[in-house]
Amino acid sequence: MTVDQPHLNVLLSRPIGPADGFPYVVRYQNVAVVEPAASLSIGSHQHAHYEIILVERGPYRCHVNDEQIDLPGSGLVVLKPGDWHDDSGEPPLRYHALSFRIIPGPSAERSANIFIDESAPASQVIAGDVTQFLGLFARLQDENRRADAFSAFMLDALVLELLWTLLRVLPAPIIHPALMVTIARHGFAADLMRLFSRSLATTLDLGQMAAAMSMSKRSLTTRCAETFQTSPAKLLVRYKMER
Amino acid sequence: MTVDQPHLNVLLSRPIGPADGFPYVVRYQNVAVVEPAASLSIGSHQHAHYEIILVERGPYRCHVNDEQIDLPGSGLVVLKPGDWHDDSGEPPLRYHALSFRIIPGPSAERSANIFIDESAPASQVIAGDVTQFLGLFARLQDENRRADAFSAFMLDALVLELLWTLLRVLPAPIIHPALMVTIARHGFAADLMRLFSRSLATTLDLGQMAAAMSMSKRSLTTRCAETFQTSPAKLLVRYKMER
Repeated sequence: MTVDQPHLNVLLSRPIGPADGFPYVVRYQNVAVVEPAASLSIGSHQHAHYEIILVERGPYRCHVNDEQIDLPGSGLVVLKPGDWHDDSGEPPLRYHALSFRIIPGPSAERSANIFIDESAPASQVIAGDVTQFLGLFARLQDENRRADAFSAFMLDALVLELLWTLLRVLPAPIIHPALMVTIARHGFAADLMRLFSRSLATTLDLGQMAAAMSMSKRSLTTRCAETFQTSPAKLLVRYKMER
Repeated sequence: MTVDQPHLNVLLSRPIGPADGFPYVVRYQNVAVVEPAASLSIGSHQHAHYEIILVERGPYRCHVNDEQIDLPGSGLVVLKPGDWHDDSGEPPLRYHALSFRIIPGPSAERSANIFIDESAPASQVIAGDVTQFLGLFARLQDENRRADAFSAFMLDALVLELLWTLLRVLPAPIIHPALMVTIARHGFAADLMRLFSRSLATTLDLGQMAAAMSMSKRSLTTRCAETFQTSPAKLLVRYKMER
């Protein structure tokens, strides 16, 4: 077998075990478009699940747990289960509101907490350019309108993609520490695999690997054991074999 | 609150209960690009998980459980856990190979069966236009190359989207009956919600709903109870209230 281009298997070896993936299931609930003909004012309320407000065109204003958020142009607001929020604005305002559940939560009626309880409302907001989210919401709206036997499953996949697009750009300190551990584990695995893929022609020893990862040899060995249940040297051999 | 456009909540009421979604978790494993400089020939083998071969440019030939599949141009082959398969072809062949797991399977080492055991190999093949899959694979390859702490989660979402794109176009009889029940349940719910959204201005009685759904009144009542734990009339009231 001759292969011109290298296989693109940077992430070939995923972490193994309970932290292998997102420990929840995401379920699309509904999506709406709001484009008021006159001033809009919706009083303060809360939900047991998540809501994403994507402002395509302002002006939009809301309060999140009493803190005022102004989006004169475009932007996005993440509302956690239990967050008190209202909405107001006027033409030419146009926004999308997406609701979804993250299960299992603390009860059947409430989504899981993937953010810290005491996040500053401003850290739940992306002000300005939301182009990458507009594309995702356009696909959500199309699939919602299509509404066939497969749509709910497809919408679940699209919401999962939206959630990870969001988690990537939101400030890391607002992500729940337990979820952050899982994400960091994948970051460690990705960094190690990238190092391996750069070093296929050479044989790295533990010291070289640790230096490249900016870790002590002891820390690298410990994290590697926790994440992959093996040593850095054995993992490198496995990586080369799998390619 | 004045809203110019109606809310687009066709799927507002999802089926409730154990059949509410896909009862598995999908985990990306790896993705490779194969573009051989000379004739390619990989002997017969099998995997414990799923593999999707996306042929961007043929000629590609394989055997799936002894049946020969020829893709002179473009196409896609779905390989189930345990399917015996080989690969051959020659320049200008270019294909993508994606592996993923569906958990929980019958054992930790084997993915769940979402297809029937005895599917005809030809029914696992899409010959010809695969444009919608090329777009998804381009995103998978981009994310795989990006390889940061979030990539594995994003790849899981993309594979889930790919899986449902596939299930939508594959022949329904090859889908596992248990999964087909869940899909059909969502089809029933989507049809009912679409009927409701068309009939917001009128008050449908049970006979009119049953006629519009091409079902007997008794069947509609039974399926509605199974899917939504309520009667068609009460569901319509709830639907109108939620809008």
